[in-house]
Amino acid sequence: MNPDEVSRAFVEHYYSTFDSNRAALANLYQEGSMLTFEGQKIQGSQNIVAKLTSLPFQQCKHAITTVDCQPSGPAGGMLVFVSGNLQLAGEQHALKFSQMFHLIPSPQGSFYVLNDIFRLNYA
Amino acid sequence: MNPDEVSRAFVEHYYSTFDSNRAALANLYQEGSMLTFEGQKIQGSQNIVAKLTSLPFQQCKHAITTVDCQPSGPAGGMLVFVSGNLQLAGEQHALKFSQMFHLIPSPQGSFYVLNDIFRLNYA
Repeated sequence: MNPDEVSRAFVEHYYSTFDSNRAALANLYQEGSMLTFEGQKIQGSQNIVAKLTSLPFQQCKHAITTVDCQPSGPAGGMLVFVSGNLQLAGEQHALKFSQMFHLIPSPQGSFYVLNDIFRLNYA
Repeated sequence: MNPDEVSRAFVEHYYSTFDSNRAALANLYQEGSMLTFEGQKIQGSQNIVAKLTSLPFQQCKHAITTVDCQPSGPAGGMLVFVSGNLQLAGEQHALKFSQMFHLIPSPQGSFYVLNDIFRLNYA
């Protein structure tokens, strides 16, 4: 798969997991992983998933608008930049968001998330 | 300076240069630098600045809303994630945008932009 295909497959996997079973996102992070969520800095797979599973909504659906991807350097990492809409259950209007991921190759031949920055764009 | 201060100083420098003298942004990129501008992929300092200086507006003003920063790995790079508003001269409404930069330490003790991804969030 080329980088664009890898990044699109990752994005589809990430948000479908987020929308169906947020706790399973733990597999995508490691101890050194960082999340900045609306300015709040969180580190480590366990803390990141604790944050994501404690967000004040139970059901949501991400709809992806754009996915951009670039190699992050000679070590084989990839930067993935996403924009889209987040629909919360019971809310009339979707929220626009932007998010970036830095994916690092893992010894198993897949990728894990080293960096994750999420922002809502209050439209 | 800590990483948050470095990233904020970079962001202020980048957008003030963009708004006053776009051609001078060439100093912030190198030959291996990548820009993805609204999905269009461009590589190399010269090509990137050719793109930025040929955008179909002469005067603009960026107003920054948020700046988030994370280290990108052991090599000393930094990821900077920006959201803000772009006001074009003569237009009534500002455009929302999101942009990410991957900054790499240069031998001179400063940073250059290896990765740059820009998207408008049509609000």
